[in-house]
Amino acid sequence: MTASSSADEVLVREVGPRDGLQMARGTMATDLKIRWIKALAHAGVRSIEVGSFVPLKLIPQMADTGEVVAALRDLPGVALTALVPNLKGAQRAHAAGARRVIVPVSVSESHSRANTNKGTDEAIAEVGRITAWSRAEAPDLHVEAGCATAFGCSIEGVMPQDRVLRVAEGLVAAGADSLVLADTVGYGNPAQVKRLVAAARSAVGDRLEALHLHDTMGLGLANAYAGLESGIRQFDASLAGLGGCPYAPGASGNIVTEDLVFLLESAGFSTGIDLAALVAARDLLREGLPDELLQGQVARAGVPRTYHTA
Amino acid sequence: MTASSSADEVLVREVGPRDGLQMARGTMATDLKIRWIKALAHAGVRSIEVGSFVPLKLIPQMADTGEVVAALRDLPGVALTALVPNLKGAQRAHAAGARRVIVPVSVSESHSRANTNKGTDEAIAEVGRITAWSRAEAPDLHVEAGCATAFGCSIEGVMPQDRVLRVAEGLVAAGADSLVLADTVGYGNPAQVKRLVAAARSAVGDRLEALHLHDTMGLGLANAYAGLESGIRQFDASLAGLGGCPYAPGASGNIVTEDLVFLLESAGFSTGIDLAALVAARDLLREGLPDELLQGQVARAGVPRTYHTA
Repeated sequence: MTASSSADEVLVREVGPRDGLQMARGTMATDLKIRWIKALAHAGVRSIEVGSFVPLKLIPQMADTGEVVAALRDLPGVALTALVPNLKGAQRAHAAGARRVIVPVSVSESHSRANTNKGTDEAIAEVGRITAWSRAEAPDLHVEAGCATAFGCSIEGVMPQDRVLRVAEGLVAAGADSLVLADTVGYGNPAQVKRLVAAARSAVGDRLEALHLHDTMGLGLANAYAGLESGIRQFDASLAGLGGCPYAPGASGNIVTEDLVFLLESAGFSTGIDLAALVAARDLLREGLPDELLQGQVARAGVPRTYHTA
Repeated sequence: MTASSSADEVLVREVGPRDGLQMARGTMATDLKIRWIKALAHAGVRSIEVGSFVPLKLIPQMADTGEVVAALRDLPGVALTALVPNLKGAQRAHAAGARRVIVPVSVSESHSRANTNKGTDEAIAEVGRITAWSRAEAPDLHVEAGCATAFGCSIEGVMPQDRVLRVAEGLVAAGADSLVLADTVGYGNPAQVKRLVAAARSAVGDRLEALHLHDTMGLGLANAYAGLESGIRQFDASLAGLGGCPYAPGASGNIVTEDLVFLLESAGFSTGIDLAALVAARDLLREGLPDELLQGQVARAGVPRTYHTA
């Protein structure tokens, strides 16, 4: 796969090392985490969220993110992302060698306060502080903002579309380089994805880059397909569907990377990912997280001999 | 819900008592099967595939289908379907009180022979014998034909679209009242669903009524959504995702009825089904099939307080 992109290329970002491990039973050893990320890169994954720079006392599993970024920053052809909640996290991420950070901002005021002790507007203002600093002192840093709970919240229920758009516009005004709409608790449906993506494109244009979907209600891949049909060409997913949100009761894992890749490849899109090698990388999860239930239909059924239909 | 249909009504046919139980570990007692079907009807399910009239030695779990049909034929507002492989089965079904039969015909020659000892053309000819008989002697019988393995086969791989259309046209020529395209082994993808539904509509018009989807590779609901977008308003599904195909290795269950209903209702379609009552009907499955793994994300996560977004 070359750097030039055709209309049918889709970028899959693996978020298991961050969103997945954050919720996993047990902690994965740093060296195994690094081997896992290298196996993903070897399978052709070109974008990986490798961890977060958050206060250690909140999420001890992420204590080694600096070490992981430092070990992997020169991995060829792979963009590393780190999640950061605030300016201090962004500064730590950049110092460790990350060149892309994602700052989550919850559209749901209740979720925002439960998750970060900040309201939505305060969180948007923090994105402004990060971009102001990065422009002055870290111009090589890409600052992505995530509109969390954009499709619904387990505390507040369905999010009014106007509120999502207001947050998206606020994040762009605060200088975010790109946006991802996140179905943090997995309550979204495909019709809503189409409506919201179209409305967000009208509001913020190509600044909307990606969707981050969960499979709580089983609609994750249907929602991804609706996103594809709406022109989205970047998706977050996690190997074996690891992940969730500690502050969103009932939220289960991210959409399963290997099932998403099967969807994309069989439907005629190109991911650059070797599906068999991706499935094989699950062995490292089994080794590192023996108590974790691994999800995923493709791994269970086996990769069919032929499945490219387009 | 009245008999008049608006554009947004979708008919969900529960196929668990047939496709589900056929593959289940253990046999469900007849009285419990009847209680289960009544619970589904109580939840608002208006179409149920209650069993099959096949040789007993092949599928002993279906031995009581005649008894089940006889007990339920007067259930108000519910259409009962029975699967039949041949004329003799259709005659037994009609005698028991069934007014709708489905005859599966596999597009894959290998799957057809493995499943029924008949080639595809012989199976189409059998549909012709059934419709000739029903027109003469059972004019109140609706004969539906299922294009099995229409989206792929675990033996032959991807099915060429021309072959699917040839079978669909053959079934209409043989007098089938309606057609369902079945992804028997669950290898289909949403782009393929859209292409095939559009092509089949061109070939056989409204005779194509429904999709029967499996979730083998995790794409079942994405495929259902693609079908919805293509104008399909009838779908098969099974409670807790029971089901599979004994002659299609690797095939896992049908799409999960409760997850499909969540998709439909949250996306603004009307099913007439009470989601909480549907989820509660899983208790009868647990009672009748204690060794069976029940699938389904909605039941696991719980029905959200609010989820209607349209």
